[in-house]
Amino acid sequence: MHMKHHRTEDLATLAARMFEDIRALSADAAGVSRPAFSDKESETLAYLAERARAEGLSVSEDAGRNLLFSLPEHESADRFTVIGSHVDSVPMGGNYDGLAGVIAGLIVLISARRGLRALPRPVKALAMRGEESAWFGACYIGSKLLTGSLPEGEFNAAHKGDARPLSAHLETLGIDTAAVKARQPLCDLDRIEAYLELHIEQGPLLVERNIPAAVVTGIRGNFRYRDIHCIGQAGHSGAVPRAYRHDPVLAFAELMHRLDGTWQHLLHTGKDLVLTSGVVGTDPARHAIARIPDEIAFSLDIRSQDAATLDQMQAYLRDEMTDIGRSRGVRFDPGPAVAVAPALMDPDLVGGLERAMAAVTGDAFSMASGGGHDAAVFAQAGVPSGMVFVRNRNGSHNPDEAMEIADFMVGVDILSTYMEARP
Amino acid sequence: MHMKHHRTEDLATLAARMFEDIRALSADAAGVSRPAFSDKESETLAYLAERARAEGLSVSEDAGRNLLFSLPEHESADRFTVIGSHVDSVPMGGNYDGLAGVIAGLIVLISARRGLRALPRPVKALAMRGEESAWFGACYIGSKLLTGSLPEGEFNAAHKGDARPLSAHLETLGIDTAAVKARQPLCDLDRIEAYLELHIEQGPLLVERNIPAAVVTGIRGNFRYRDIHCIGQAGHSGAVPRAYRHDPVLAFAELMHRLDGTWQHLLHTGKDLVLTSGVVGTDPARHAIARIPDEIAFSLDIRSQDAATLDQMQAYLRDEMTDIGRSRGVRFDPGPAVAVAPALMDPDLVGGLERAMAAVTGDAFSMASGGGHDAAVFAQAGVPSGMVFVRNRNGSHNPDEAMEIADFMVGVDILSTYMEARP
Repeated sequence: MHMKHHRTEDLATLAARMFEDIRALSADAAGVSRPAFSDKESETLAYLAERARAEGLSVSEDAGRNLLFSLPEHESADRFTVIGSHVDSVPMGGNYDGLAGVIAGLIVLISARRGLRALPRPVKALAMRGEESAWFGACYIGSKLLTGSLPEGEFNAAHKGDARPLSAHLETLGIDTAAVKARQPLCDLDRIEAYLELHIEQGPLLVERNIPAAVVTGIRGNFRYRDIHCIGQAGHSGAVPRAYRHDPVLAFAELMHRLDGTWQHLLHTGKDLVLTSGVVGTDPARHAIARIPDEIAFSLDIRSQDAATLDQMQAYLRDEMTDIGRSRGVRFDPGPAVAVAPALMDPDLVGGLERAMAAVTGDAFSMASGGGHDAAVFAQAGVPSGMVFVRNRNGSHNPDEAMEIADFMVGVDILSTYMEARP
Repeated sequence: MHMKHHRTEDLATLAARMFEDIRALSADAAGVSRPAFSDKESETLAYLAERARAEGLSVSEDAGRNLLFSLPEHESADRFTVIGSHVDSVPMGGNYDGLAGVIAGLIVLISARRGLRALPRPVKALAMRGEESAWFGACYIGSKLLTGSLPEGEFNAAHKGDARPLSAHLETLGIDTAAVKARQPLCDLDRIEAYLELHIEQGPLLVERNIPAAVVTGIRGNFRYRDIHCIGQAGHSGAVPRAYRHDPVLAFAELMHRLDGTWQHLLHTGKDLVLTSGVVGTDPARHAIARIPDEIAFSLDIRSQDAATLDQMQAYLRDEMTDIGRSRGVRFDPGPAVAVAPALMDPDLVGGLERAMAAVTGDAFSMASGGGHDAAVFAQAGVPSGMVFVRNRNGSHNPDEAMEIADFMVGVDILSTYMEARP
C-alpha cells in the first residue's frame, strides 16, 4: 500500500511536469496558444512522444498526423480502446482544455507500464490535432478527418491568421487531402472498440457541487439563431400610450421571460436544457432614450442532449414569437437557424464509468456536456463513446482555466479503474 | 350662417398659406430647419409680423426678441391672456411642431379683427424663439428666458453646430444676458392672466381614436436613467446549468416584464404612465453567441403627469432591481437619475377648454401630454396654463408630421370659443 501510494504521487508529479513543460513550450502574451495544424502543435506532439518513449511506450503517427501511444505489447493489437483528446488550444487560452485528456491517456498507459494498474484489453492513447474552431471557424477537424466526416465547406475554410485554406495547411503536413475530400476515414473505425475522453468541465457545476469529476451522459446538441430581429414601430417615449405601442424591447423581454419560465419547467420535469441570449442590441444609429425603438436584434443559443427537447423548444419558440408578435403588434424575423445534433454517450460505457467512479470516489456523478468535444464526432461515426469531466475553475478558452492535479488524477483513476474492469 | 361659413373657409385658407410660406422659407434637404435664435427664426418672425400687420393687428417685440400680436385696442392692456408657442424646429423637422400654436394665436386674433368672433378680454399671441433642445441641448429656452428660469448650466450650453455658447447667441440678438444670468423674468408675469398653447399631438392617440383635437390635462414629468448596467457573470452558453447562471440578459428581461405588468396595473387603476427602454445592448467588444454575457446596459424613461406615480415607480424600480438582483445573482448599477417634475394644467382652464371643445365638436376629450412644452414652463412659473392638442399623423420631430388644416381649425375654434366665454 505504501509503495502504491508513493508511485501514485510519482504519476501526479509526472503529469504536473508534463503540463508545465507544455505550458512553457506554448506560452503566449497571456495563457497558451497552440494553433491547429501548426508547428507549435507539432512541437507539442514531439514533446509528448519523447516523454512516452522515455516511459517505455510505443509511439506511432496516424494518417491525420496525430500520435498514438500504447504499451509495446498492444502496438499491433487488432482492436483497441482509444483514450484521446486534442493538443491544440484557442489563442491565449488555458493549458488544460484538450491537453488534460491527452496526458490522461498517457498516464493510464504509464501507470500500466509501471505495473501499478492492469490493462487487460489494448488501449491506445490518441493525441489529436485541430479541435478548436478559433483557427479555421470549423471545430473537431482532427476527429472529423479520422472519421471521414469533414464537410466540403470546411475543407476550404480560411485560417483566421494567414487566410490560407485548411486544405493547404493539411497538405503542408503531408495529410492525404484527396481522401479527406472524398470523406474517407483516415483511420479504421472498425478497430476502435470504444472512444474515451477526459476533459476539463467548461462550466461551474463540479466546483459548485464540490465533486472532483463526473461521467458525461451526452454532449448537448443545439440550435442557434445568430440574429433575430423583433420589429415594432418607433414613437415618442412620452407621447404614445401603452395601448398604441409596438415596442420590440418589451416583446423581447416577454419572449425571454417566457423562455426562462419554460426552461425552469422543463428542468423540473427532468429534461436537459440550457438557453442563452448572448448578443442583444437596439440599433446605435437610430436608438435614443426618448424614442420607442423600432427594432431590437438578439441571438439565441439553445442546447440539450435530448433531440426531442430541442425539437420541442424550436416549436415552442416559434409559437411564442407568433403569439407575442400578435399580442404586441410586433414581428419576429428569426432568420436562419443552425443546428447541431446531440451526441449521447454509449449507455454501457456510461454505466461502466459510473461504476468506476463509485469505486474511486465512493459516489458516481453524471452530467451532460454543454460544450462540444471530439467524443461527439466519434459517437456520431458509430464508435461507442464515453467521457469523464474533471473539475475546473473559471471555465475554459481563457488563461484562467484552473484544474487541480489531484482532481485530474481522480479522472485518470476512473479511466484506469474502468479499463481494468472492462469486460 | 352662410356668411360665417364662408369667412371660416377664408381663415383656413389663410392659415394654410402661412404654413406653406413658412415651410418654403425654412425648407431643408428634408422637412424644415428653423434653428433656435438663428437668422432663419428671425426671418420667420418677420414674415409673421408682415402678415399680422396686413390683417390690421398690432405687433411688438418683447425683451426675449419674441413677437407679440394683439388687436390694436388691446395693445396696452394691463392684463391679458397669452396664446403662444414657438417658431423654431428641430433640424430637418416637420412644419407644425410649434408653428401651429403660433399661427393659431394669430388666427384667433384675425378672426376677432374680422368681426367673426368676439374677444371680450385682451389676448396677446406670442411667437417664441428657441424651444427645441436639438440646438443647445437645453429645451424651452425662450419661455425660460421670459419666466427667469434658465439654469446657469444652460446659459453656457454650446450650440451643436457652431459650438458658441447660448449666451453668445443671445447677445448677438441683443438680449440682456445679465438679466438672464440673474434669472430675472424678461416679461412681467403678473400681467399674464393665463397661458394657452395649441400644439400638434406627438403621439398617435387622436388618430387612433378618430378625434380632431383634445384638451391637455397635464404635461408628463419623467425620470430617466441614461445608462443602467446589469452586471452578471460570463460563462459558456452550453456548459453552465441554469442554477449557476448570473445572466444579466434574463435579469433585464424579467425587470422589463415586471415593469410592464406594473404599468398595466397602474393604467387599470386610472393612473397616467408611459415607460420606455429605448437603448439596450450587450457590449460588442465582448459579447458572443456562445457566451453568457457578463453585462447588459439599457436606458429607462418613465413618465407620468402625476408626481406621486413617478415617486411610486422610482421606489418600485429600486425594489425590483434589488429583488431580481438577489434572486438571479446579478447587480443593477442604475447610475444617476435625471428628473423633470410634471406640470398640471390649471383645472379651471381645463374645464373651460373642455366646455369649449364640447360646444365645437359635440364631445370633450382630454389627455395627458407626453412631450414637454413651453406651457409647462409657464405653469411652473405660476401662470395658469392650458393646452389644446391637434390630431397629427406620424409623430413629430420628423418631416412626415401631417396635421390637417380642418383639424387645426377645430383647435383654433376651441380657443376662440373658450376666449369668448372666458369669465
